[in-house]
Amino acid sequence: MTATMPTEVSATQALVRPALRDAVATLEPAMRRIVGYHLGWTDERGEAVEGGGGKALRPALALLAAQAVGARPEPALPGAVAVELVHNFSLLHDDVMDGDTERRHRPTVWRLFGTPAAILAGDALLTLAVEVLDAAGDRTASRCLTTAVRRLIEGQSADLDFEHRATVGVEECLRMEDGKTASLMACAAELGALLGGAGGPAVSALGDFGRNLGMGFQLVDDLLGILGAPEVTGKPVLADLRVRKKSVPVVAALSSDTGSAAELREFYRREQVPSETDVRRMAALVEQTGALTWTRRRARRYVADAEAALAAVDPPAGIRAALAELTRFVVERDR
Amino acid sequence: MTATMPTEVSATQALVRPALRDAVATLEPAMRRIVGYHLGWTDERGEAVEGGGGKALRPALALLAAQAVGARPEPALPGAVAVELVHNFSLLHDDVMDGDTERRHRPTVWRLFGTPAAILAGDALLTLAVEVLDAAGDRTASRCLTTAVRRLIEGQSADLDFEHRATVGVEECLRMEDGKTASLMACAAELGALLGGAGGPAVSALGDFGRNLGMGFQLVDDLLGILGAPEVTGKPVLADLRVRKKSVPVVAALSSDTGSAAELREFYRREQVPSETDVRRMAALVEQTGALTWTRRRARRYVADAEAALAAVDPPAGIRAALAELTRFVVERDR
Repeated sequence: MTATMPTEVSATQALVRPALRDAVATLEPAMRRIVGYHLGWTDERGEAVEGGGGKALRPALALLAAQAVGARPEPALPGAVAVELVHNFSLLHDDVMDGDTERRHRPTVWRLFGTPAAILAGDALLTLAVEVLDAAGDRTASRCLTTAVRRLIEGQSADLDFEHRATVGVEECLRMEDGKTASLMACAAELGALLGGAGGPAVSALGDFGRNLGMGFQLVDDLLGILGAPEVTGKPVLADLRVRKKSVPVVAALSSDTGSAAELREFYRREQVPSETDVRRMAALVEQTGALTWTRRRARRYVADAEAALAAVDPPAGIRAALAELTRFVVERDR
Repeated sequence: MTATMPTEVSATQALVRPALRDAVATLEPAMRRIVGYHLGWTDERGEAVEGGGGKALRPALALLAAQAVGARPEPALPGAVAVELVHNFSLLHDDVMDGDTERRHRPTVWRLFGTPAAILAGDALLTLAVEVLDAAGDRTASRCLTTAVRRLIEGQSADLDFEHRATVGVEECLRMEDGKTASLMACAAELGALLGGAGGPAVSALGDFGRNLGMGFQLVDDLLGILGAPEVTGKPVLADLRVRKKSVPVVAALSSDTGSAAELREFYRREQVPSETDVRRMAALVEQTGALTWTRRRARRYVADAEAALAAVDPPAGIRAALAELTRFVVERDR
């Protein structure tokens, strides 16, 4: 099943890109070059790439949230840029921490420019995010961003911790993914509503929308990490199993009371790198425990909760449709 | 020559420590443990260490700057804590980037807890610094901090860049050290003055004081990196030459018009790791070019400029004496 980004979301990209470019333009040239490459704007030689750039899902969420509360998207731009910068700060550091050599079918920054450059580029984007939002002059918005960054770091820290632990519970794994992914998506929607001038209840409802959407997004990501084909995801097939990552479906499978779970736990206890046969067997075992079906169902529940949160805000029809499409994209995407 | 930290500076530590502990206490337990170790509060097993902790030079500067403009030190505490957190964020990431295995005679965080933990701990401290200062509610202060962080990252980026370049000018090397070190010390003093309620001219004069003091501090650090004994600096002897670091004295030596410089350039062009004999020869060559004497003189000039900037503020006698002692400590220290 392939899903493309809805038109309204693409429309927000036309606003976000120049604002993001303006922010990145304030970095010194060497850093700008690295960041431009990471963001897909330029190739390895620093030359412009046609149609480069990521999905920009978080900025779209911020701008649509502003419109959902009846504002124009423009006031939400600093929020949109800030969350995209934070997202990319975390990708740059994540790739170093996980030792990932490819992202979006290209060498990762640390692989191409070295680990120090990737660490510094991440640091620069985090600082830039704070600066961009600070310039909007809304202290609640600034606090919202730093709280989300804090949760993000906590989530990544828990993720690392899980690697070294024999058992991880499904609930704590969901909490980890809430920190790692959903918090920044909640923040994106909250920032849009805040900068759009909305009051507490609407900000909070849109935050709920973003958080549930983020959880749905992450669970789909987890499923793609087990099932996704490398030609579309840009990651090696069965990538998460290969490194014995403890994502939600894996944790659900490991903790299920089945014979398949027992065999899977055996694979997770081993020290050596799993062979191709091992990895395929592990995928089959996860499937047999029913964990994939359970995760798909859980993702749909998060999406339903997101839709319910949105209904409370009662956005204009066009924006409601765009957010509904965005939601569909999140669960139906294959990359 | 050994210099100890002046009493007034130690007195500021009594105020800063609990505030710093309160800030760190808001981190989640796993992160708190890593940060506590890094700050010297606990040992490798997480047990409290008597009299641990670094020099806390930057917080002292912030609190003394507030007192220099006639305020109490307490309002400057968020600034003092924020600069110390930023300083430690940069140390954590620096140790990863430089591959340094020891700091203050103990294994570095990446060495003990792994690179991912060190990267995340640095990210957490940077975020915490922004949060702590944001809570003080002074937007000029918040901007001052993010600008300093930006300069710090630019300085570190230039430092990395220099490693790969055949020639580096003395002026651009001084600019790099201004970014890497002096900007945060300027920021510490500015934050103290700002949070102490001072007006523009006093903030700016104290910023000048901090910047010049920071440059003096860094040049002394560069000299210690060439001359310092490992038992006091906690770094291997001739550490900077061993890794062919392009610090100011080295750059001054390399660019001098002497026979020693030509031989030194030859050492810097080589690919292989220098032998013990090589490193000692390199140190002798740097000395022979007159670069060490030049750097010492330059450091003294920065200190004189710092003193002149301070005179313009006309601080109370006790605070003036404390800042003078702090200044003396910076240039006379041997670690």
